[in-house]
Amino acid sequence: MDLHEMDRYIKSIIKEAGHKIRNSFLTDISIESKSDANDLVTNIDKEIEQFFISRINRDYPDHRIFGEEGFGDEIKDTNGVIWMLDPIDGTMNFIHQKRNFAISLGIYADGVGKLGYIYDVVNDDLYSGIQGGGAYYNDERLRPLQDTEIGESILAMNATWAVPNRHFDHNGTLKLIQDVRGIRSYGSAAIELAYLASGRIDAYISMRLSPWDIAGGMVIAKEAGAVATNFKGEPANLLEQDTFLAANPSIHAKILDRYILPK
Amino acid sequence: MDLHEMDRYIKSIIKEAGHKIRNSFLTDISIESKSDANDLVTNIDKEIEQFFISRINRDYPDHRIFGEEGFGDEIKDTNGVIWMLDPIDGTMNFIHQKRNFAISLGIYADGVGKLGYIYDVVNDDLYSGIQGGGAYYNDERLRPLQDTEIGESILAMNATWAVPNRHFDHNGTLKLIQDVRGIRSYGSAAIELAYLASGRIDAYISMRLSPWDIAGGMVIAKEAGAVATNFKGEPANLLEQDTFLAANPSIHAKILDRYILPK
Repeated sequence: MDLHEMDRYIKSIIKEAGHKIRNSFLTDISIESKSDANDLVTNIDKEIEQFFISRINRDYPDHRIFGEEGFGDEIKDTNGVIWMLDPIDGTMNFIHQKRNFAISLGIYADGVGKLGYIYDVVNDDLYSGIQGGGAYYNDERLRPLQDTEIGESILAMNATWAVPNRHFDHNGTLKLIQDVRGIRSYGSAAIELAYLASGRIDAYISMRLSPWDIAGGMVIAKEAGAVATNFKGEPANLLEQDTFLAANPSIHAKILDRYILPK
Repeated sequence: MDLHEMDRYIKSIIKEAGHKIRNSFLTDISIESKSDANDLVTNIDKEIEQFFISRINRDYPDHRIFGEEGFGDEIKDTNGVIWMLDPIDGTMNFIHQKRNFAISLGIYADGVGKLGYIYDVVNDDLYSGIQGGGAYYNDERLRPLQDTEIGESILAMNATWAVPNRHFDHNGTLKLIQDVRGIRSYGSAAIELAYLASGRIDAYISMRLSPWDIAGGMVIAKEAGAVATNFKGEPANLLEQDTFLAANPSIHAKILDRYILPK
């Protein structure tokens, strides 16, 4: 697998997909709910996933595809090459804001992240990462993350997780909220991971993310030096929904140890 | 007071200030704390406030200036014309992210908002409002806000306010977080009000804002149809820090009545 050749290919289809999404703003978008009333999907999410699948099937027929909208393969193991795709990460933002969403794509070989892409479509900002080759913001190489302290950190976290819940003791979250310098929430895991990789936030935490939400961003964030795990400190889950913490390496373990209190 | 003439004048000095801020990214920025360790100010906040003051004093010598950094006048009443200025709203974002901050400026005559400006410096996006003359995103007139429901709303709120606090019963906040469609937090009241005015969010709530945080955004948001008050339903405070709720007119009273539970 020639990563640099694939990188050029992927960038070109991502830009093509972004063009399709921008054009969709001129059309009527149809909106449906999935697992619950606020889990939204549009015809554009579906069309963009199908566009990627048709290209991948044509040009990389041996590869498998794990996509949010379910048009790809049924994935039960991480063997071989898998494209993990969220055609529009942040669908609610796409619908309500027409911004702050991204195409998220990660290419994994036998469970190891090789290539990662987050394309902020409206700003035409592409974040990318190549295993061992660095993380990039457009053509600019991102600097390795600098050490920080929890008290000087900006944490991305949805306020939903401050509500008492069945996943873990929310008192840890409340303490973390009080201890960090600031909290932000952008409504797209991909954009939050792009912000982590570029040092604009220092940690991103979520109680429930799917592989396609994090696959692309993890490659990029790791190339910038970030650490990503579930709440048990295990490698982030590439097959199922799980808890997720990605952070500057100087505070990742501290957040897990001091604030993530399993029930 | 010729609002259209002032509008042209103000837009030109705001763009000039934005140019100075963008140039500051090439220099070393010095950072200090104010009221607490996370209440940050830089030499750029101060220089930009002084730039505005020098222009206003020269060209509108009868007007008073209420600025975040304190170089303006001491303001104890709303008589006459007052320029309410936050030279960099979202200083933490300015420092950590070099984006997601704004110049915020409101011009009030005897306590009535006449002109409002929010300039997202890095994106070169100017939101503006003229009393009775509409709200604008760059040159495009913003559409009046459409009716919505709480369950279909996006609320901007800092997760800090989900923590038990002395201002009000946080159980109301927790309920509101659960009832809305989504929560966002961008770290700049000005940007959050610009998002409200442009319909990208439906409500913005904060337990503690100063007049210069909201003065510009309120003129713009009101011209788009939004309603802004403190938690008692009184007009937003133009003289002192206070609670703040600005929202789509179809849900403002519902949020106050159902979720804001005074202690």
